[in-house]
Amino acid sequence: MQYPLPIARLIDNYMKLPGIGEKTATRLAFYTMDMPEDDVEDFSKSLIQVKENLHSCSICGNITESDPCEICRDANRDRSTIMVVEQPKDVMAFEEMGEYNGLYHVLHGVLSPMDGVGPEEINIKSLITRLQKQDEVKEVILALNSSPEGEATAMYLAKLIKPAGLKVTRLAAGLAVGSDIEYANSITLKRAVQGRTDL
Amino acid sequence: MQYPLPIARLIDNYMKLPGIGEKTATRLAFYTMDMPEDDVEDFSKSLIQVKENLHSCSICGNITESDPCEICRDANRDRSTIMVVEQPKDVMAFEEMGEYNGLYHVLHGVLSPMDGVGPEEINIKSLITRLQKQDEVKEVILALNSSPEGEATAMYLAKLIKPAGLKVTRLAAGLAVGSDIEYANSITLKRAVQGRTDL
Repeated sequence: MQYPLPIARLIDNYMKLPGIGEKTATRLAFYTMDMPEDDVEDFSKSLIQVKENLHSCSICGNITESDPCEICRDANRDRSTIMVVEQPKDVMAFEEMGEYNGLYHVLHGVLSPMDGVGPEEINIKSLITRLQKQDEVKEVILALNSSPEGEATAMYLAKLIKPAGLKVTRLAAGLAVGSDIEYANSITLKRAVQGRTDL
Repeated sequence: MQYPLPIARLIDNYMKLPGIGEKTATRLAFYTMDMPEDDVEDFSKSLIQVKENLHSCSICGNITESDPCEICRDANRDRSTIMVVEQPKDVMAFEEMGEYNGLYHVLHGVLSPMDGVGPEEINIKSLITRLQKQDEVKEVILALNSSPEGEATAMYLAKLIKPAGLKVTRLAAGLAVGSDIEYANSITLKRAVQGRTDL
């Protein structure tokens, strides 16, 4: 005897999520069976709605319920700066910080030739079109992760954008606030020394 | 700015699952957004169906798509033995083993006065009714976990069932096959010595 079909199917579906293996999926499926019906219905609906009601902003590529997105529509934001990020989650992180008032551009990935991700696969073309159209842009901040792919993508974009006379910057690299020098890796330390500032 | 509503709602729903905190829920929600639409639809449907299409068997309490369940309906099973287990997952474990051909009774929990779980809260009443009705039952195997609650429930059931003249047994306790004596806890060792068998 195997699991009844509905349970087996739910286990399969949980297993499609990252980091969830068969044991966890089974536990989650049985847990789901015992959840209040309303909760399960809401869960089920929210899955569909995240696919149906969320779109990419046609300007910046961020996820949004309305197009253009809230940030692109906001007249109070500084239109002279565009921060280029990898994913929508990065936008959320900067918005949570609350200190940045410019616009964003979400690449939805980074260049990674090994995985078959070239400039066509990520949201670069729309960034270039945007920079050509919007004269008010003065600075492009490349806020990409410091992974090899992130660095390579930043270099690629800098080469592409700089000739247009725009200021291209990247985030400061150095020691994370609250971290120990003792445990920092040597590349971080190197960057921290290179980027030292006057006191 | 917070997460767009559909994402926030999905994060909330993922967080209702056991062992999933805010960070994991957020990761899962964003992952869901990028999943193929068919997969998400299937996931959504399977959640609903696990609530709608699975019921408790009116005889043994196991989860089933049809009532009575496959096992209770199976004419080839030995109706003289009933194995009492805590949860449907335990039935699956014994069925996977393949050596047991009797019937089951699923309690859906164990007695736990601390958590407000008394005899009324678990599937005990239907077990007693069942034993009174079905004359062919000769033995009741109490296959409960060896937690304090499991042990207490087994004692309670034994007291209840034995007076009816039925054989009441419990699973052998001892060293797990493949385990090291060195690492076994002392209660397990004590049980293993008490239950030693002739060679």
